[in-house]
Amino acid sequence: MGEAGIAAVLDAISWNGDELVPAIAQQHDSGEVLMMAWMSRDAVAETLATGRVCYYSRSRGALWRKGETSGQVQALVELRLDCDGDTLLLAVDQTGVACHTGRRSCFFRALRDDRLATIAGVEIDPAELYGK
Amino acid sequence: MGEAGIAAVLDAISWNGDELVPAIAQQHDSGEVLMMAWMSRDAVAETLATGRVCYYSRSRGALWRKGETSGQVQALVELRLDCDGDTLLLAVDQTGVACHTGRRSCFFRALRDDRLATIAGVEIDPAELYGK
Repeated sequence: MGEAGIAAVLDAISWNGDELVPAIAQQHDSGEVLMMAWMSRDAVAETLATGRVCYYSRSRGALWRKGETSGQVQALVELRLDCDGDTLLLAVDQTGVACHTGRRSCFFRALRDDRLATIAGVEIDPAELYGK
Repeated sequence: MGEAGIAAVLDAISWNGDELVPAIAQQHDSGEVLMMAWMSRDAVAETLATGRVCYYSRSRGALWRKGETSGQVQALVELRLDCDGDTLLLAVDQTGVACHTGRRSCFFRALRDDRLATIAGVEIDPAELYGK
């Protein structure tokens, strides 16, 4: 994506008090919602420039290049913006798993029969993703 | 959903500094991501008790019963929680349109060819939804 596109998106985003915006990652073909994380201006710009999704880690206070350690990268297919400009929807192509627990999606707990049930299994051992 | 289920969810959520949690609404069958909004404890409890999605409006500082004015209600199909407990994914059945602009989804702008393009049309005139 070119500089004009990056500028258009950065201008259209309504940043929160911490100068961040929430971003929902959705697998572009299956429609599965994979995760939600936060992006800074630099994260949005890098994501659009490289085509590889980069978030902002609030706990580490630094850019978080998704998959840099684990190899489980997200290729950006399309960036979408909501009506208020305060949330992004990223259509992505997820390599392997999105969740640090080794599950495809971070949303693997569901309320069923008055209990939180685990509805998705571990596909890759986290020890494989992050070293032992 | 019973009291035990509501308590389990409220306990499992990692609330932010404003005692809110972001909630993504996804049409349960098509997989379309409709919107993202915020929920308070009361909003989560009411949603689970009634089966009709209720958010918390940060601008109004009050519960926001989705569709109360417009009729465009969301029936809750399933509530899911992410790995960190800091984001909810609501599988819903959306009546009509989710967006106040009269579009099915709030995410109707996409970056294409270095410009933000409108990728979804208005299905219901907002004047019909909110009165003239």
